[in-house]
Amino acid sequence: QYSTGVRKVTLIPGHGIGPEITVAVQKIFEAAKVPIEWDEVDVTAVRGPDGKFGIPQKAIDSVNANKIGLKGPLMTPVGKGYRSLNLALRKEFDLYANVRPCKSLDGIKTLYDNVDVVTIRENTEGEYSGIEHEIVDGVVQSIKLITEEASKRVAEFAFQFARDNKRKKVTAVHKANIMRMSDGLFLRCCRELATKYPDIKFEERYLDTVCLNMVQDPSKFDVLVMPNLYGDIMSDMCSGLVGGLGLTPSGNIGKNGALFESVHGTAPDIAGKDMANPTALLLSAIMMLRHLQLNEDADRVQNACYAVLREGKSLTGDLGGTGKCSEYTNAIISKLN
Amino acid sequence: QYSTGVRKVTLIPGHGIGPEITVAVQKIFEAAKVPIEWDEVDVTAVRGPDGKFGIPQKAIDSVNANKIGLKGPLMTPVGKGYRSLNLALRKEFDLYANVRPCKSLDGIKTLYDNVDVVTIRENTEGEYSGIEHEIVDGVVQSIKLITEEASKRVAEFAFQFARDNKRKKVTAVHKANIMRMSDGLFLRCCRELATKYPDIKFEERYLDTVCLNMVQDPSKFDVLVMPNLYGDIMSDMCSGLVGGLGLTPSGNIGKNGALFESVHGTAPDIAGKDMANPTALLLSAIMMLRHLQLNEDADRVQNACYAVLREGKSLTGDLGGTGKCSEYTNAIISKLN
Ligand SMILES: CC(C)[C@H](C(=O)O)[C@@H](O)C(=O)O
Ligand SMILES: CC(C)[C@H](C(=O)O)[C@@H](O)C(=O)O
Repeated sequence: QYSTGVRKVTLIPGHGIGPEITVAVQKIFEAAKVPIEWDEVDVTAVRGPDGKFGIPQKAIDSVNANKIGLKGPLMTPVGKGYRSLNLALRKEFDLYANVRPCKSLDGIKTLYDNVDVVTIRENTEGEYSGIEHEIVDGVVQSIKLITEEASKRVAEFAFQFARDNKRKKVTAVHKANIMRMSDGLFLRCCRELATKYPDIKFEERYLDTVCLNMVQDPSKFDVLVMPNLYGDIMSDMCSGLVGGLGLTPSGNIGKNGALFESVHGTAPDIAGKDMANPTALLLSAIMMLRHLQLNEDADRVQNACYAVLREGKSLTGDLGGTGKCSEYTNAIISKLN
Repeated sequence: QYSTGVRKVTLIPGHGIGPEITVAVQKIFEAAKVPIEWDEVDVTAVRGPDGKFGIPQKAIDSVNANKIGLKGPLMTPVGKGYRSLNLALRKEFDLYANVRPCKSLDGIKTLYDNVDVVTIRENTEGEYSGIEHEIVDGVVQSIKLITEEASKRVAEFAFQFARDNKRKKVTAVHKANIMRMSDGLFLRCCRELATKYPDIKFEERYLDTVCLNMVQDPSKFDVLVMPNLYGDIMSDMCSGLVGGLGLTPSGNIGKNGALFESVHGTAPDIAGKDMANPTALLLSAIMMLRHLQLNEDADRVQNACYAVLREGKSLTGDLGGTGKCSEYTNAIISKLN
């Protein structure tokens, strides 16, 4: 799918701390001689012909051309007519699988050791259908939409991901005891795909039980696949186990494109002060390298980043350190080999 | 609402380990001279005139008469036509608020200290509406139903609970950024009630953020109120922080009745072997005493139970001990004073 040689990647720095953490990643990649050429575009909400706010056409064209992008945090203005630009991007490019690995990092102390789970979230429908009605005054319904097509492709993605990454088990997370038809359909699709991947263990678990077991013993889990909202919750929860959104990468994968992103906020209070932690965006960029099959580059940058975290010097304030974003960046560069 | 003197309480022992943990609670209450008279009924699914399986009429009549009940775990047979009896009970008696306190217990070692949160879950609608359709082949919708009436009454319950129990803060947990109309309505109801309880701090947080923050620092939270499914998840997760479902009580409260229950399973593998842990049912029964304003009785039994847990002797297998259910029960009785 991707050319060899230098790869062109759409770069969306985003807002708040977005630009500075983006520069950090660019510097590290440059120092590491990663064969990437950035195609930088702005994604600030623009009013479209329909009066609604959306993604600028230039950004859409760039992602469509490059089929791969890296993005920082986006600010969504609050108010009528605005919708989340993050969601709009997932929708625009039909990025149907959101992949969020959460792995304990040496040097980052949390209550948990040896967390190593990957949440795979259906990213296009479910509770995020956007279909809502007020039936009568004070009575509202929101529609959770589950289709066989979307369920199968994300289930297939999960099993294939497990196989490609030498994972052992896929757990389907559901509430089919309550939403028998919708989660039931999702679950049936997972079961069906499971039969095509006999090398991967398959299990199905209730969402509430997974939440309980996850906080007690995350080593019970490996790869998890689930409908949209459940993935939203589980991925944040798992991120909390290993240090939070500042340390966990995310990739949105579709058939015709992929967008890697840090999922933390824009942190306007510290923006422009050289205080931001670029780790989540860097780890997302490393995921992107693996997606491009630049595994050696990915390993080199990752080793350098892990070494700095392990040594615990030059870490940013959110990690308990006193380092600036630029110092942390330089520390990583000095570890490249 | 309740008579003074001896209170009659419907007792539903349930299945699996239900009967033995129920006997444990009865013995402890008897030894403590708690002014309760039990009205024991069986709740095993029976086929109703409509062909569907449901709750036996005798049990319904008993709860309707006593307006208060204690129940062990129920087995729901799997298959067409069956629905969860737990859900059927909540529905039958319109038990609109599910209250689940999760508090760290001395003697029970988990990764967390000083957890003290109460989840208040809307218990009648939301994602549990049961309304689902297959639109066309492979396309299913489930309806999340949110009403102003149900949202307001559970919000009011949460604030009143906070005030009655000298709690400081209520957090409304939602995804109104995604389900703008349904969660939006729920959130507006919470805001409205907040203005009527100026003595209680109010905050609103996204569900995913709460999951992340909860595993990192549960002390950030106090009382939480939320739609049905979110409560299902959060209450199990919080239970995990303090030792699991074997140690956490639950109460389902309505206008005309209340049902207290252990929310763990029937554990058929150890049923009848005097190995079960009755703590969750006992703590639920203690919650029930407080609901009946039998606070002194509640304190006495609770102190005895906490003393045994603190000392760590006679604990059951699931708590890492070697005690039998009956030994643990006797240990609690010996601590009553
Ligand atoms: C920003 C928000 C709309 C989004 C979501 O709910 O999916 C976020 O929580 C995420 O996980 O990417
Ligand atoms: C048994 C099941 C139907 C139930 C639920 O989903 O509400 C349980 O998880 C609970 O929390 O009481």
